[in-house]
Amino acid sequence: MRHFRLTLAYDGTGLVGWQRQHAGTSVQGLLEDALSTLDGRPVSAASSGRTDAGVHALGQVASVTLHRDIDPDTLVRALNFHLPPAIRVLAAAETDAGFHARFSARWKTYRYQIWTDGPMPPMLRAFAWHVASGLDLAAMDLAARSLEGRHDFAAFQSTGTAVADTAREIRASRVSTVPAGGDGLLRGLPPAAGRLLAYEVTGNGFLRHMVRSIVGTLVEIGQGRQPVGWMQEVVASRDRARAGPTAPAEGLLLVSVTY
Amino acid sequence: MRHFRLTLAYDGTGLVGWQRQHAGTSVQGLLEDALSTLDGRPVSAASSGRTDAGVHALGQVASVTLHRDIDPDTLVRALNFHLPPAIRVLAAAETDAGFHARFSARWKTYRYQIWTDGPMPPMLRAFAWHVASGLDLAAMDLAARSLEGRHDFAAFQSTGTAVADTAREIRASRVSTVPAGGDGLLRGLPPAAGRLLAYEVTGNGFLRHMVRSIVGTLVEIGQGRQPVGWMQEVVASRDRARAGPTAPAEGLLLVSVTY
Repeated sequence: MRHFRLTLAYDGTGLVGWQRQHAGTSVQGLLEDALSTLDGRPVSAASSGRTDAGVHALGQVASVTLHRDIDPDTLVRALNFHLPPAIRVLAAAETDAGFHARFSARWKTYRYQIWTDGPMPPMLRAFAWHVASGLDLAAMDLAARSLEGRHDFAAFQSTGTAVADTAREIRASRVSTVPAGGDGLLRGLPPAAGRLLAYEVTGNGFLRHMVRSIVGTLVEIGQGRQPVGWMQEVVASRDRARAGPTAPAEGLLLVSVTY
Repeated sequence: MRHFRLTLAYDGTGLVGWQRQHAGTSVQGLLEDALSTLDGRPVSAASSGRTDAGVHALGQVASVTLHRDIDPDTLVRALNFHLPPAIRVLAAAETDAGFHARFSARWKTYRYQIWTDGPMPPMLRAFAWHVASGLDLAAMDLAARSLEGRHDFAAFQSTGTAVADTAREIRASRVSTVPAGGDGLLRGLPPAAGRLLAYEVTGNGFLRHMVRSIVGTLVEIGQGRQPVGWMQEVVASRDRARAGPTAPAEGLLLVSVTY
């Protein structure tokens, strides 16, 4: 038996998310089907964590065990042959039996992309939230940074999915603009068209809808409807009803997982 | 009557290109339908030039004349209300009656994106050509630069679309890598995954399929199948059969038009 760590990128548009569901196409389902075809028996894949319907990944990690003797490079090519272009295995590395994509994970980094002001560039429409009103970047960044450290994030947990321990450690939480001109897809876009904001957050774990709820709260602050200090009030309340709305899935990307 | 210059971005995936066709969805068709709805009578739109099926635009320009009294900002919002999200009007400016998007154009800039080496990131798959073998960037850039100046580009004109005057002036023709880390969509992608090359070319006009034929020729050179000097041999031959294959449409973006 050989154990592998797979790094995957996917465009979550039209997918029901990582996890297999009764209906719809999931990343896990497609990956397990491809692995099972290769291994000639049912193979299950564990990921660093679920991503919701419509959420994307640049560097999701999965752990799998195969009976067949196959080297990592061949595994990458064979999986990509069987997977649709919306899902790519970027890399495979052999691990020991103790490696588990979820339980061995130390830090996860997410990015949430927001297009502001101008009309949404068509190339970005599946990968960013369009917030047409101007946003106060400095206020959003201050509020974002106030989340760094260890906090109880119960206020940002989606209702009906109670987890016992809602404390998480956030190592970095920042809002920035994606530098104009350095962007592969948008380089050359007329400067007046708007700008792309990115909220990037690294933590030791995230509750369901936590990043999207934080973003919804940041946007309330960015629009001036709430002061910067409101973020800490929401955290202290531990009350989901106090936070901003859950931002749409399409702006969210799982960037990387470190072990 | 009021005359407008419109700046448009579109995701060409699934579109038959700029020009209205007997079948399929065209940018011109959708734009003219939206304009006609607004103006209450048939409106025709002229663009800086056709883009082929599957080709994208960050800054296509169209000229239109409306009978209705409407200010530019309202026009942008009203058109975007009627257009699908794959097409956005980024800006509108009032012009005099003499402005024509095609005949008044001085320079057009195209970019062709190539993803090299690693598996194609799903977010890029509609906006780049995947060339899996390593490419010699320096050789490609040298060959690209040799096209700067005034040349007869008959060798890069698609067969069966003869234009009498095939001489064009190329002001800039360069191959570069899109800087890692500066890319909105790809920032955070594992560095081993590959890299994005961009061919950017600015000229006073382009023959049908010219940019894509140049790219096919550059890739032959980048793969080491032909020397750098082959580019000038192809130009001198004026023979389409001598050039490289036409690169696929999805990698091509019309970046901007200057007047």
